[in-house]
Amino acid sequence: MRADGQVRLRIDLAYDGTHFSGWAKQPALRTVQGELERAIAMVVRREPDEVTVTVAGRTDAGVHATGQTCHVEVTEAEVAKLAGRHGSIAGAARKLNGALKRLDAGDLIIHAVCIAPEGFDARFAALSRTYEYLVSPRGVPVNPLLRHCVVSLGDEIDLDATRTASLTLLGLRDFTSFCKARDGSTAVRTLIDFTWAKRTDGVLAATIHADAFCHSMVRSLVGGVLAVGAGKLTVQRFQELTAEQRRSSSIPVMPAHGLTLVGVEYPEDAGLAARAAVTRARRDPLAPQALG
Amino acid sequence: MRADGQVRLRIDLAYDGTHFSGWAKQPALRTVQGELERAIAMVVRREPDEVTVTVAGRTDAGVHATGQTCHVEVTEAEVAKLAGRHGSIAGAARKLNGALKRLDAGDLIIHAVCIAPEGFDARFAALSRTYEYLVSPRGVPVNPLLRHCVVSLGDEIDLDATRTASLTLLGLRDFTSFCKARDGSTAVRTLIDFTWAKRTDGVLAATIHADAFCHSMVRSLVGGVLAVGAGKLTVQRFQELTAEQRRSSSIPVMPAHGLTLVGVEYPEDAGLAARAAVTRARRDPLAPQALG
Repeated sequence: MRADGQVRLRIDLAYDGTHFSGWAKQPALRTVQGELERAIAMVVRREPDEVTVTVAGRTDAGVHATGQTCHVEVTEAEVAKLAGRHGSIAGAARKLNGALKRLDAGDLIIHAVCIAPEGFDARFAALSRTYEYLVSPRGVPVNPLLRHCVVSLGDEIDLDATRTASLTLLGLRDFTSFCKARDGSTAVRTLIDFTWAKRTDGVLAATIHADAFCHSMVRSLVGGVLAVGAGKLTVQRFQELTAEQRRSSSIPVMPAHGLTLVGVEYPEDAGLAARAAVTRARRDPLAPQALG
Repeated sequence: MRADGQVRLRIDLAYDGTHFSGWAKQPALRTVQGELERAIAMVVRREPDEVTVTVAGRTDAGVHATGQTCHVEVTEAEVAKLAGRHGSIAGAARKLNGALKRLDAGDLIIHAVCIAPEGFDARFAALSRTYEYLVSPRGVPVNPLLRHCVVSLGDEIDLDATRTASLTLLGLRDFTSFCKARDGSTAVRTLIDFTWAKRTDGVLAATIHADAFCHSMVRSLVGGVLAVGAGKLTVQRFQELTAEQRRSSSIPVMPAHGLTLVGVEYPEDAGLAARAAVTRARRDPLAPQALG
């Protein structure tokens, strides 16, 4: 407990984004944040609008998560309500899942709840985020059980060409070609990893790991390298488009439902506060990077 | 084309069983057979009740399929309508998927259509069926993206014990303990394979392969061996229950939504008619088999 009597809880959760209008709360729409805050309020007996959670990755409508993280502030007395009769805050996941079930929100599941370590902030202390994107290329039988999280493509995909294009994007660079920078912010990000695997069922799975992502960036990155894999762009033309640093219609934004946030990475406890301080300071715009 | 002017088509398909009341057509209920017959009728321009498909595995309500097979009789003129302007019957899958989309049945997908070889019968020529059953044991984070096809268990599962129990069931035997034999039929089946794999996401996947299954047999087989894996039954007690050859409440029937028909196996073309003749002849009831 801190001097102000508040306790910060870390909540790890997962959701099927199909029937949510994204993470962020919006009036009259069903959102992940809205349902989660209602469930917490139900257990600690506050009004729903008196609970605010802060999240690592604000996912768009239709985007899923298997490894999302957020935090929320509660009082000592509320910690006891969340812990229930077993007295351990770990039991809060079960209580919250019960509340979500009563809210008919079985598409949102709490995996773990714990007292956050000193300096933890779900958003600002995060070092990086990892997303997965799933596509079923032409020629692979579509599995109707996965139609809500795998995108069916009309094209066959050359995996080697897709991988080559993906590798050209790694490192610290300006990703303006893949996401419009908002006023007062930059599209400079560090892409740590962008790999492709072919699953035994024929589905192609991209893993995209970066310090942070700007709006629709993952879906444009995947759209760009799949355009190369489908033979619609050469690697050279793709690199030219990337260097132009403006949105191009040759780099399509892929549908939301193929995308899943699979993990958020944090430093060891001792480094949490330092990381949050660094992230909060606005990034310096970097000069455009040469490609290749 | 046969002397009667009819052509038999083989149709390979897949479906998410969540919103179907099973395979078999029933008045006023949404069934896989019903939707498929409507789609075929739409393309060949018959009334829906003038189309009848015959299936390899009549799945229950909520059970899925990624590798189901059926057949249907059409005329030469209807083959042309199904083939469309490209003139190949392989194009019929695309036409039928278009019709299914117009029927708002995106949970049912046609993988392939072909002229059936001489002697082919989706039901009677099948040598065997393979099912998969998916469970998420206690301690494995539940993935909400898979909640419609993976059953969450309250117990941790000892995979070695589960495998040992599964192996005791292999071979030709009377499976009455796992399925009530209907009048005039027997519960004698050959269980060819019953294996368990742990996926990278922690989900346990059972593969169950038999010449045929009686009603609710797969779900009882899985329920029985998981009772052993959860420590609720010893392998010895499980074998005793199996030998008793009557349904026992200690062998639970698992929920339908964990079950998927993944494949139907047929002989080479030359053996099709012979296989169908053998299967049509009613199986001789065998004397109960000793276990072990």
